[in-house]
Amino acid sequence: MNEKSIRGIMVGRFQPFHKGHLSLVKQILEDCDEVIIAIGSAQYNYIFQDPFTAGERMLMIHKALSEAQIDLTKCYIVPIINDENNARWLAHLRSMVPPFDILFSGNEFVGTLVGEHVKIKKPEFVSKKYYNGTYIRKTISKKDNWKKLVPNGVAEIIEEIGGVARIKMLLHSYSYPQRW
Amino acid sequence: MNEKSIRGIMVGRFQPFHKGHLSLVKQILEDCDEVIIAIGSAQYNYIFQDPFTAGERMLMIHKALSEAQIDLTKCYIVPIINDENNARWLAHLRSMVPPFDILFSGNEFVGTLVGEHVKIKKPEFVSKKYYNGTYIRKTISKKDNWKKLVPNGVAEIIEEIGGVARIKMLLHSYSYPQRW
Amino acid sequence: MNEKSIRGIMVGRFQPFHKGHLSLVKQILEDCDEVIIAIGSAQYNYIFQDPFTAGERMLMIHKALSEAQIDLTKCYIVPIINDENNARWLAHLRSMVPPFDILFSGNEFVGTLVGEHVKIKKPEFVSKKYYNGTYIRKTISKKDNWKKLVPNGVAEIIEEIGGVARIKMLLHSYSYPQRW
Amino acid sequence: MNEKSIRGIMVGRFQPFHKGHLSLVKQILEDCDEVIIAIGSAQYNYIFQDPFTAGERMLMIHKALSEAQIDLTKCYIVPIINDENNARWLAHLRSMVPPFDILFSGNEFVGTLVGEHVKIKKPEFVSKKYYNGTYIRKTISKKDNWKKLVPNGVAEIIEEIGGVARIKMLLHSYSYPQRW
Amino acid sequence: MNEKSIRGIMVGRFQPFHKGHLSLVKQILEDCDEVIIAIGSAQYNYIFQDPFTAGERMLMIHKALSEAQIDLTKCYIVPIINDENNARWLAHLRSMVPPFDILFSGNEFVGTLVGEHVKIKKPEFVSKKYYNGTYIRKTISKKDNWKKLVPNGVAEIIEEIGGVARIKMLLHSYSYPQRW
Amino acid sequence: MNEKSIRGIMVGRFQPFHKGHLSLVKQILEDCDEVIIAIGSAQYNYIFQDPFTAGERMLMIHKALSEAQIDLTKCYIVPIINDENNARWLAHLRSMVPPFDILFSGNEFVGTLVGEHVKIKKPEFVSKKYYNGTYIRKTISKKDNWKKLVPNGVAEIIEEIGGVARIKMLLHSYSYPQRW
Repeated sequence: MNEKSIRGIMVGRFQPFHKGHLSLVKQILEDCDEVIIAIGSAQYNYIFQDPFTAGERMLMIHKALSEAQIDLTKCYIVPIINDENNARWLAHLRSMVPPFDILFSGNEFVGTLVGEHVKIKKPEFVSKKYYNGTYIRKTISKKDNWKKLVPNGVAEIIEEIGGVARIKMLLHSYSYPQRW
Repeated sequence: MNEKSIRGIMVGRFQPFHKGHLSLVKQILEDCDEVIIAIGSAQYNYIFQDPFTAGERMLMIHKALSEAQIDLTKCYIVPIINDENNARWLAHLRSMVPPFDILFSGNEFVGTLVGEHVKIKKPEFVSKKYYNGTYIRKTISKKDNWKKLVPNGVAEIIEEIGGVARIKMLLHSYSYPQRW
Repeated sequence: MNEKSIRGIMVGRFQPFHKGHLSLVKQILEDCDEVIIAIGSAQYNYIFQDPFTAGERMLMIHKALSEAQIDLTKCYIVPIINDENNARWLAHLRSMVPPFDILFSGNEFVGTLVGEHVKIKKPEFVSKKYYNGTYIRKTISKKDNWKKLVPNGVAEIIEEIGGVARIKMLLHSYSYPQRW
Repeated sequence: MNEKSIRGIMVGRFQPFHKGHLSLVKQILEDCDEVIIAIGSAQYNYIFQDPFTAGERMLMIHKALSEAQIDLTKCYIVPIINDENNARWLAHLRSMVPPFDILFSGNEFVGTLVGEHVKIKKPEFVSKKYYNGTYIRKTISKKDNWKKLVPNGVAEIIEEIGGVARIKMLLHSYSYPQRW
Repeated sequence: MNEKSIRGIMVGRFQPFHKGHLSLVKQILEDCDEVIIAIGSAQYNYIFQDPFTAGERMLMIHKALSEAQIDLTKCYIVPIINDENNARWLAHLRSMVPPFDILFSGNEFVGTLVGEHVKIKKPEFVSKKYYNGTYIRKTISKKDNWKKLVPNGVAEIIEEIGGVARIKMLLHSYSYPQRW
Repeated sequence: MNEKSIRGIMVGRFQPFHKGHLSLVKQILEDCDEVIIAIGSAQYNYIFQDPFTAGERMLMIHKALSEAQIDLTKCYIVPIINDENNARWLAHLRSMVPPFDILFSGNEFVGTLVGEHVKIKKPEFVSKKYYNGTYIRKTISKKDNWKKLVPNGVAEIIEEIGGVARIKMLLHSYSYPQRW
């Protein structure tokens, strides 16, 4: 690392961090010196759409990167609380993470929010049909073979913290504070 | 009341407080010395799902307990503002209510949130089909016979504050600040 | 303007400000000395339901009034952040705008919220079917002839800021911070 | 209790609830049918100015009233989260407590905030020099004879929850999340 | 007004709007086509440092500009709720006001916050010793001759709304919700 | 790293991260397998007490650890937004970071907040007189020899981002959004 490091950033909720995400980390590290992984919706957890806490997601990502022998001196993993004012989102993000040069996102909405202030690069996702959080949470809830979709370390953590039972419970139970 | 009082807690939105809730208060007072009634979503009101203010709900509960000759020196009625971070929910609740020993809830989600920190006891609800807030609000909006579903004192307060007209209005009108 | 000015207020999200709104401004200025135009949900933007920032909406309204040769010394245009506690809404509004005498709204919900504290007057809207934000945003997203529904100045600003592309994008893209 | 009950309200932080407060409760119950005790700054705790949680304060008040043989069917004890917008304070309070007729306060500021909307009555406080929270917290921190300043039940709870050590610690320690 | 209008912005709390502020509005309108007057700390009021509501401040400014025969078609007066994250402040401001080209401020802090994103121009303030809010509030609280420091219209509104008594009360009373 | 990793946590504002902090990281890694460095008051920046953004602080810490050849696969650096409800602080922290076993803090306040839920270990700080943020910010503002108090990498980043000028400016300027 030196002061002229080029940093790329990727943003997601990582519920959970899957192989598509890991592949994107590797793509970014081919293009950039360092990568920032911003964990969005950090304040949400124990919701079917957002089952894992920010801390658990950080643990999953950290383990997946270690396991993949990605050099962690090049990686920043940062939880980000949502900001309801979208027009302020880029400034919000920037205040919470190290300076970055390229935002990796194929999402047109993100592109619009950052406008001309940041260089956008579209990632090459493989098999987006399977490697997406919604599909994986649904697969976990059905006890189907979800483990192949996420890095080993992520699968191990999900099992350790009772993540499968949690997701199944969240699917069937009321979301309590919202709608008892 | 003495320092070794065993306290049970029940949590709900109480929109409105109905006979099923009253029955649960009685169950808790058979098992515990004191009962805490936590009124969730305290900041919401004048919404079809949440028509009554926290203050109105407190009034209804207070009156229903008095009327049922439940000893109010054994009861704590406490409005609770929501916390969007579920993993913090138990600590949030604890900061707002007297210490408690048993949480009465049949909701698996609540059980998961409190984990092993609190003893959970499943209430015996009677006729959950009728004694539930959603059903009662719908019945009120249709001017059907809703009064038998709630304690007399609750029915009286709903009428005094124009609750029937309010619920009917909320069903048909736009929810203004959200979607004018 | 003098100290005894009668002020009327209208509240909306103005996504975007259309000819029905402009007509209401004129109605109010026939009845009152001054008009307050309160822009609700001021903190939302870059959402399909709320595409424009509060600043952009203020600009549109200001331009539409100028163009219609309405005397701006009689007009107050004020962005208002939402308050999730509806029972507090009137007090919230009052803390943010000049004192007012009449609230112009045909919405029963608004009427209930302000109760007997404020005189309510029902506006005469023309062609509410076409002159409403939902219809206009949908029309914009289909590139149909939306310009006739809004004052010229509003159409010009929407075009200048790339509003048509923004609305189309918001319709098709994920709303990012919420659900990446 | 009946529907025409006259209710008086008193508002304080009750850090801790002392004999001056108890005396005010009695005064109110001479004038009114029922009393509302609103616990302000409910979200603060473990601060030297605000050592006790809302739940602990509720417990102290409840016990003090029971002990003084005040009829709890006539009392509402309600924690209130602060609202930074003072002009909205009365509406905020009203949304959280049962309807009230008289606000008991000698504080000119409170009088100004409620304006002509609520009848204000000035309480007769005895020995305000000693019966005030700041003096009592200071006395507790010096281990002086503080117990005579609060009702017995309050002293017992403060001792049970380690309140003396807590107040001494808060006086000497940094307030951590604020200024580590 | 046309699409190429150059807009200047000034930001203040305007507690109250004084002749120094009015002079700055005039300076800006010599340099720019339009002026935006952003009213900061909009959510604060009934505090000695912040006695007036956002709505009252808007009214004062509006009246002062009218009286000074400033063309209101060139002016935008916008209340802004604070953002505790300073690094996000410029984006927050931009989301709430029309686009602007020059920020008028002699405050080095503001200059740092906006960095190179906005052109900064230092205003020529006259007699900053007298024309500043702190001095004026103190003068009002002493019933000294404060009226010459503010535009006539501002003095009239302060008197109409009982502002002198309010400021004197706020100086002497406790700030209630904070420290009862 | 494996599933049975013992994790220690240290919490601070790190304005800036200094040699005392670095020494603590090393102490923790002697006792534990992994260390979590929680950056408190993450939402504050551009304030004299809190000059650096969370992102800048993360960058400083990351660089200091790399430079000290601390194995980053054992480190988690996590910004934490404050929670004003202290009684909820431990749960708030836990929701944002990986699970931990020991909290390293000599602060009695922190010890009280975590109670018996977490093992506390008192760090051995060297020269707390010099190695503390307040002293270092003051030293930076006087252009005294501050660089020896922080790791080289931290000094480099402070210079790169103009941190010395920023701190001097913050000392002398008004804090704008708060008190223009």
